[in-house]
Amino acid sequence: MITGKNYIGNVLASTGKKTFKTFNPQTNQENDVIFTEVSEREIEIATALATEAFNKFKTISGAKKSDFLNEIANQIEALGDELIQTYCSESGLYEERAINERSRAIFQLRSFANLVKEGSWVEATIDTANPTRKPIPKVDLRKMLVPIGPILVFGASNFPLAYSTAGGDTASALASGCPVIVKSHPMHAGTGELVAYAVIKAAEITGMPNGIFSNLNSSGIEVGTTLISHPAIKAVGFTGSISGGRSLFNLAAQRPEPIPVFAEMGSVNPVILLPNAANKKGSHWAKTYANSITLGAGQFCTNPGLILGIKGEDLTKFIKNLAEEIVQIEPSCMLHPNIIGAFEQNKSKMEQQTGLEKIASYVKETSINYGRQIITTVDGVRFLENTTLHQEVFGPFSMVVQCENIEQLETIISKLEGQLTGTILAENEIELYSEIVNALQNRVGRIIFNGVPTGVEVCNAMVHGGPYPASTDSRFTAVGVNSIKRWVRPFCYQNWPDILLPNALKNKNPLNISRLVDGKQTSKKI
Amino acid sequence: MITGKNYIGNVLASTGKKTFKTFNPQTNQENDVIFTEVSEREIEIATALATEAFNKFKTISGAKKSDFLNEIANQIEALGDELIQTYCSESGLYEERAINERSRAIFQLRSFANLVKEGSWVEATIDTANPTRKPIPKVDLRKMLVPIGPILVFGASNFPLAYSTAGGDTASALASGCPVIVKSHPMHAGTGELVAYAVIKAAEITGMPNGIFSNLNSSGIEVGTTLISHPAIKAVGFTGSISGGRSLFNLAAQRPEPIPVFAEMGSVNPVILLPNAANKKGSHWAKTYANSITLGAGQFCTNPGLILGIKGEDLTKFIKNLAEEIVQIEPSCMLHPNIIGAFEQNKSKMEQQTGLEKIASYVKETSINYGRQIITTVDGVRFLENTTLHQEVFGPFSMVVQCENIEQLETIISKLEGQLTGTILAENEIELYSEIVNALQNRVGRIIFNGVPTGVEVCNAMVHGGPYPASTDSRFTAVGVNSIKRWVRPFCYQNWPDILLPNALKNKNPLNISRLVDGKQTSKKI
Repeated sequence: MITGKNYIGNVLASTGKKTFKTFNPQTNQENDVIFTEVSEREIEIATALATEAFNKFKTISGAKKSDFLNEIANQIEALGDELIQTYCSESGLYEERAINERSRAIFQLRSFANLVKEGSWVEATIDTANPTRKPIPKVDLRKMLVPIGPILVFGASNFPLAYSTAGGDTASALASGCPVIVKSHPMHAGTGELVAYAVIKAAEITGMPNGIFSNLNSSGIEVGTTLISHPAIKAVGFTGSISGGRSLFNLAAQRPEPIPVFAEMGSVNPVILLPNAANKKGSHWAKTYANSITLGAGQFCTNPGLILGIKGEDLTKFIKNLAEEIVQIEPSCMLHPNIIGAFEQNKSKMEQQTGLEKIASYVKETSINYGRQIITTVDGVRFLENTTLHQEVFGPFSMVVQCENIEQLETIISKLEGQLTGTILAENEIELYSEIVNALQNRVGRIIFNGVPTGVEVCNAMVHGGPYPASTDSRFTAVGVNSIKRWVRPFCYQNWPDILLPNALKNKNPLNISRLVDGKQTSKKI
Repeated sequence: MITGKNYIGNVLASTGKKTFKTFNPQTNQENDVIFTEVSEREIEIATALATEAFNKFKTISGAKKSDFLNEIANQIEALGDELIQTYCSESGLYEERAINERSRAIFQLRSFANLVKEGSWVEATIDTANPTRKPIPKVDLRKMLVPIGPILVFGASNFPLAYSTAGGDTASALASGCPVIVKSHPMHAGTGELVAYAVIKAAEITGMPNGIFSNLNSSGIEVGTTLISHPAIKAVGFTGSISGGRSLFNLAAQRPEPIPVFAEMGSVNPVILLPNAANKKGSHWAKTYANSITLGAGQFCTNPGLILGIKGEDLTKFIKNLAEEIVQIEPSCMLHPNIIGAFEQNKSKMEQQTGLEKIASYVKETSINYGRQIITTVDGVRFLENTTLHQEVFGPFSMVVQCENIEQLETIISKLEGQLTGTILAENEIELYSEIVNALQNRVGRIIFNGVPTGVEVCNAMVHGGPYPASTDSRFTAVGVNSIKRWVRPFCYQNWPDILLPNALKNKNPLNISRLVDGKQTSKKI
């Protein structure tokens, strides 16, 4: 069923000249399907279709968008085992993970379907006229959120389903009323095509305009560069490395018309092990963190790559426990030889840093492309001196920093770059460390008490984002229904005839949504 | 009372070497006070103070921030006639305008005071835990909006009070909990210092930490450049020209840690005169628009610089009427010789464009620095060919484009750059022109029916912003309480002990605010 072609709207096309294959890291062999890179002409057609489709799609009701999103979920489910097998063969991840991630992607689509069906997310705000106001009459003003235009979504290497073709970025953009052009991730182009087929089929079944979705293949950077500079594109969603995200951000900022880029990038997700926690629960946390560090071969953006504690007996014991636990865990296959290559290279770079000590690593024989976990430690002074030690090593790697004292710990936190998460491990002592907590809050998007950062719940209250370089704009989240806010702008009607207003803003409130009317939240009619 | 010094936090300082004076365009003479430009050392102190103050300010209650904002309003009122006279002497604007603008600034401050006192603006969102959920327990997640850090605000030449020192940007940033560093506008540095005094005094009276506000003098671009590249600054607010705003945007995007810039820039605010409106209400609209075009010497960002109609008898008559009306209006003083210089230069540049015809201009003698209004007209074809004709002429200038037909009108709208506003003038015909309306909606932030774009109500439903280059980020508004969203980010607590949560997120809801709890909006406790 996988053709290796691009979806230019609902048409499969392969007029391009370059081709590539995906790779199975478990078997260490290329997969069979030949993918054709999208051509420049196909890019032009896809962007023109998206622009045209936008004018229809933006006026489609929430109920119809909801049907569309639910139908995408149905169609992904209907792909059945072919999707799961393709996912596994292109990522080296296990079937259980594939099934879980499919559930997550489907849950996201259905969450957005519910959101737009209910409809209040548009933040309808009405200030009625006051013709007798002095010195000048007050006009009638009505505001709601409207979609901004075609969105470019980059597939993520580490989430072939939940943050790629019909993942969080695509689901939120389509929910908002924006067409989506996906630059499929070359590592899982087959998974991408299958999901794209599901989206296209759902669009046809629910009568959506052609062009609201295209799926483009490419193994290099040129296609992404062309797309991000294309005037039709109005915003970008990306999950990946800092260097990749920053390049896209720079290109978008340099356009004649700059556009917003939401890039969710790197993070070492600092964990603060406070003294009582080290003393009383050290072995518990060592075991818990050994699992968190190696979960999915450490290929999560919330992987805990940095553990900060106060030098002493308890920390030494924690390190010993962590070392003992981590070597007992069986390594897992990494996503691609390039990913494990980068892991090995970054690991070596770290090991060369003065003062860094390796305290445990998995040394037994493993299958090829399996990432062997490693735990390191370094002094607080060395860590402060050398910002190379602050960088993420994507994979099953973590570093325990032994701080001289609480003041140094606070200094270190305040010198860290922006992070997705920060974690505090404490036992009846957190009140004593309000400055530590405060410093950590300034650096992160989500703060966790006595837990692990891995595991990102899809819900209203989630924040997945954070100060740069965790993301390029900390004012938005990439996970949860609020991620829809990335693709919308407020739009205001002044003295507009009621009959011509969108339903969300009509006097009678036909959608029965919650609105802010003359300063009061209500679902009553006017 | 005006010292010419900088407020570095609550200390008046003038260690810099460069000095400048403001200018009274009505008398065509410099004002007396000598202003000292801020020094590099003073910038370092102001930014360090702001960073330090942020850690205290961000945790201050909404009630206390409300007192502070109300006290700023009180202190501005207490400046009395000195403020009004300084304003007039530095802007050439009339006393009535000064008083109105002061009212607007005070209204904004009190609006934000009310917003943060009530407290629900933080969008508190709580998803409670579910320890028995399968396959994995659900954690407790609680999210709210938190301030992002010190904000750099640039004073605006055309609004010495409402969009400068304690104008909309400053009021919204302080309301959010962000310290503000103002780069005072050199044209009205005295007005700026007086208002800065009011802010500093209010901060002292209400016990705010020193450093949450500084006011820096500068007549060139170096100080702004230094500040925007300073790591302490976390976002920027600006109102002014496209070239100025874009320069700031570029600098911010090139930082090691890029920061958001909200620049509200140029706009020609297209007005569509539909056929029936031209036929039945042509003379009414001609009179109305003659006033709107010349209001405040055309120095409003919503000034209608472009009127689009369909070629024919009715439009010819409208143009004739507009020409007759506009020459009867007495010109007003412009803000500064540089502003009138630019107006004259841009006017001449327009007049040199092939096909542009001058149809009316004020030719009588005026005082020096008074802006003499001009109305021009051009064919739709010429307008489409020459994008120079699309550019804003800041001042009392407008251009009537005579389109061949409705299709050409639609094409022209779709070729316009982003605009703050768009206006439709219609008489029982708008239903026939849904594509015109649709095209206009894609280009603007606010759409007006049978009115004028000048006049920007400060209320919940206002949108003052729009697609680039109307603003650098159409997802935000610069006017109205929602402008606070520019300076905040969502922050999430996971499994955090109730006693340590901010009040907005505690189980008991001690602030009695409206929250989204497990998907339902409520002010009940948990």
